[in-house]
Amino acid sequence: MHSISKSQQKLINSLKYKKYRHKNGLFVVEGIKVIKEFLNSSYELEQLYSIADIFSIKNKSINIINPDNLKKVSFLNSPQVALAVFKIKNYKPLKIKTLTLALDGVRDPGNLGTIIRMCDWFGIKKIICSEDTVDCYNPKVVQASMGSLTRVKVYYDSLKEVLEQAHLPIYAADMNGQSIYTSKIEQKAILLMGSESHGISNELQKLVDKTLSIPQFGKHQDTESLNVAMATSIMLSEIKRQSIEM
Amino acid sequence: MHSISKSQQKLINSLKYKKYRHKNGLFVVEGIKVIKEFLNSSYELEQLYSIADIFSIKNKSINIINPDNLKKVSFLNSPQVALAVFKIKNYKPLKIKTLTLALDGVRDPGNLGTIIRMCDWFGIKKIICSEDTVDCYNPKVVQASMGSLTRVKVYYDSLKEVLEQAHLPIYAADMNGQSIYTSKIEQKAILLMGSESHGISNELQKLVDKTLSIPQFGKHQDTESLNVAMATSIMLSEIKRQSIEM
Repeated sequence: MHSISKSQQKLINSLKYKKYRHKNGLFVVEGIKVIKEFLNSSYELEQLYSIADIFSIKNKSINIINPDNLKKVSFLNSPQVALAVFKIKNYKPLKIKTLTLALDGVRDPGNLGTIIRMCDWFGIKKIICSEDTVDCYNPKVVQASMGSLTRVKVYYDSLKEVLEQAHLPIYAADMNGQSIYTSKIEQKAILLMGSESHGISNELQKLVDKTLSIPQFGKHQDTESLNVAMATSIMLSEIKRQSIEM
Repeated sequence: MHSISKSQQKLINSLKYKKYRHKNGLFVVEGIKVIKEFLNSSYELEQLYSIADIFSIKNKSINIINPDNLKKVSFLNSPQVALAVFKIKNYKPLKIKTLTLALDGVRDPGNLGTIIRMCDWFGIKKIICSEDTVDCYNPKVVQASMGSLTRVKVYYDSLKEVLEQAHLPIYAADMNGQSIYTSKIEQKAILLMGSESHGISNELQKLVDKTLSIPQFGKHQDTESLNVAMATSIMLSEIKRQSIEM
């Protein structure tokens, strides 16, 4: 049995915060299934703490600890069997050639996690985020994306610069846009989604080629607009459906 | 300034639990916007507690209280300006004539809330739930559905009996079903969705006329299936798209 030193505990605890994640270049993954996906990916393991010897790899970074020690470092109310620390990936600047999602100011970690999972399902390999979008290595994002982060690359950059330099049509979700159901959508394109509360920023709106909307069938003034994760899932589904039709 | 008596506090606190909600026939709604929607609906107000006189109705059930008192009864970490107690509606048995959603064993309150909101958006007026589906008056469901509960009727019943008696095609979401994108879907139908972890129960599977799937474009074995809220949103969107096309 290993134990977790005070300094290791302190380090892991600090990884709740973006500042310390990026200072240390590390982030936390919890749960056997998701950890296995990260182990089988190009992510590099820093430390793994497990209450049982269930990982069939030989690695000096694997520490078998007792459940009480795991509780001390877990971010979850009900700790999983294992907690791992991986190295953050810093991707090189992005060349956009295929269908790519751009997110402007999405703050909710659960929404970003869901969106990453949706992109994985629909085969979208890259998401480009404005710098005020929630960090993809936030523990709640990692939890909600369920390993999809190993297959979908999430970049952070000035969206204005990226969109200006991209030579693809830019679609943006907007309540007043043309219905997605009746718009012919290019498959090599950027889909720009804004945050639920603030929409798409003015400086980005100027770069948009076409706005698209999800028609509302229940016509009631009080009905809330769809949240960004639901809207993204419907948008991606419709774009992919059109790719089959053509 | 009113205060909240100990017995009122105790009552409101008990409404966190399904047993006491249904014993008392009451449930809690928090937040000005959502409370206003319930006030303007056919739901009947029992008590309203607010830290400011912002509701433009005259009603002896409205109590202006101080923020500390609101904190004592709020279910939220950051209490809103107001908390209301409304009477639960017990709907009469359901006649299914139009597109209706059936949920089998959906346990997560956030998912049910999202699904109610999606139904409101897509004009689906009725959801029929198995008896082990999470209670729609659960505070987290009410919170997540954001007033849509005033426009979408949620029933609880034996799904087996309801589906047996319905004279409409029954579609079920299933990973091995035919692609929704290439299936011609009847508009007067029942869409049956199972829980993420257990799928659709065996006794209900026998009643299904056709299974439908959302094609996976990112072909990776580890990719998680879509959660029931995401899958429902995509299914409803595609069914509604087909209603326009026809």
